[in-house]
Amino acid sequence: MKTARVAYDGLVHGARPAGAGRLKLDDGREVAEDAVVWLPPVAPRTSFALGLNYADHAKELAFKAPEEPLVFLKGPGTFIGHRGRTIRPDGVKYMHYECELAVVIGRTARHVKEADAYDYVRGYTVANDYAIRDYLENYYRPNLRVKNRDTCTPLGPWLVDRDDIDDPMNLTLRTTVNGKLTQEGSTRDMIFGIPWLIAYLSSFMTLEAGDMILTGTPEGLADTQPGDEVVTEIEGIGRLVNTIAAAGGYGSTD
Amino acid sequence: MKTARVAYDGLVHGARPAGAGRLKLDDGREVAEDAVVWLPPVAPRTSFALGLNYADHAKELAFKAPEEPLVFLKGPGTFIGHRGRTIRPDGVKYMHYECELAVVIGRTARHVKEADAYDYVRGYTVANDYAIRDYLENYYRPNLRVKNRDTCTPLGPWLVDRDDIDDPMNLTLRTTVNGKLTQEGSTRDMIFGIPWLIAYLSSFMTLEAGDMILTGTPEGLADTQPGDEVVTEIEGIGRLVNTIAAAGGYGSTD
Repeated sequence: MKTARVAYDGLVHGARPAGAGRLKLDDGREVAEDAVVWLPPVAPRTSFALGLNYADHAKELAFKAPEEPLVFLKGPGTFIGHRGRTIRPDGVKYMHYECELAVVIGRTARHVKEADAYDYVRGYTVANDYAIRDYLENYYRPNLRVKNRDTCTPLGPWLVDRDDIDDPMNLTLRTTVNGKLTQEGSTRDMIFGIPWLIAYLSSFMTLEAGDMILTGTPEGLADTQPGDEVVTEIEGIGRLVNTIAAAGGYGSTD
Repeated sequence: MKTARVAYDGLVHGARPAGAGRLKLDDGREVAEDAVVWLPPVAPRTSFALGLNYADHAKELAFKAPEEPLVFLKGPGTFIGHRGRTIRPDGVKYMHYECELAVVIGRTARHVKEADAYDYVRGYTVANDYAIRDYLENYYRPNLRVKNRDTCTPLGPWLVDRDDIDDPMNLTLRTTVNGKLTQEGSTRDMIFGIPWLIAYLSSFMTLEAGDMILTGTPEGLADTQPGDEVVTEIEGIGRLVNTIAAAGGYGSTD
């Protein structure tokens, strides 16, 4: 099953695909997809993200592949939904998209064995984990200015149930910018795979339902500019559309 | 005003001090302090923490003081309340307390000027930001195993309103372990002070009401062991009591 969260007619609704660009809301109404505002399909709780989890991408940034996962947390304010507008901050040089498989945890997980890890997964969605790479000072430091900007992590459109995906470790990821293919890879090239990451994280902290792991991106980065339409797509999971906007007055409190 | 959140008689209540070890609940009842379970006085949302924000402490760890703040995020699962039990993970060598002033944001803050920063503060509380220092591999990497363990960030007892504190940049911090003074410093020795930090963070992301900044700790670290009572106290803010417990069966899902 695929489920979304959308804002429509004064409320937030659960929704499902109803074919031909239409959605069925939880209250039974059918509406056009472009009549709603899409929200992240999961309300963010603890959100983990991986740095350099594909060897080709680590090489692209001239870093050696990590021997241990580079995991960091993302705050809730960075997430937006499908068809959202992501603000490019004024005066930065590099705003790179990053197509990533997001794994959503389904129940409390502590000291989970790798062999049991999928029992704790609720489902998957697509994340575009933009990086403002101007500020990447250090291998170990994906700092907040790189990875925690408002609007800079589109997520969606759908949460796809775990059992609908045969092998999440063998899915094609693709990014297009204004219709041109710029990034292509496969989740099978992750350095630290999904079961290993769940076992690792749950070995020293509790994972809860709604927690998310953004599993990293393959090579193929490029800068994006206001007006660009960036589509990050993962086979069987979804096609996440995002538009870059100029900062303009965004963020001003004057 | 001082406000707490406590669990009592089947519910979570707001509470205020009522003198002589008693609390007044929001529903009007008075109860003994030791009859409740204290929760963090603020339900954690986006929680920032500072590494090496006191020069004496940076020196103690043989690091140079940072030229930019080392800010990282903490997930909600690490926080517990006053008089809570913090689990020492099995098999680690160094579990260091860290007495820190926690600044709680009161309203949406974007591009705030340093001179206006306190307008965005709701109040203050005490944090004990334990570090499992075994895993501190790198200056830039206060990783999740160091700083994001379950139960490893006691917070409280009270949220103290901003206007009750004349100068939050001139408060004495003290830690005692089993009654022996082991850490003493002053918030005036922060490298990056409260107004600067709010201006910095809000320059690239939105801060929301309930967000918190744990502002770092002065020198005086020491290891703690199961059975130890660790009291972190900040002048005018509060006296946060915490007990270290052995992991025992904690975290097992077998």
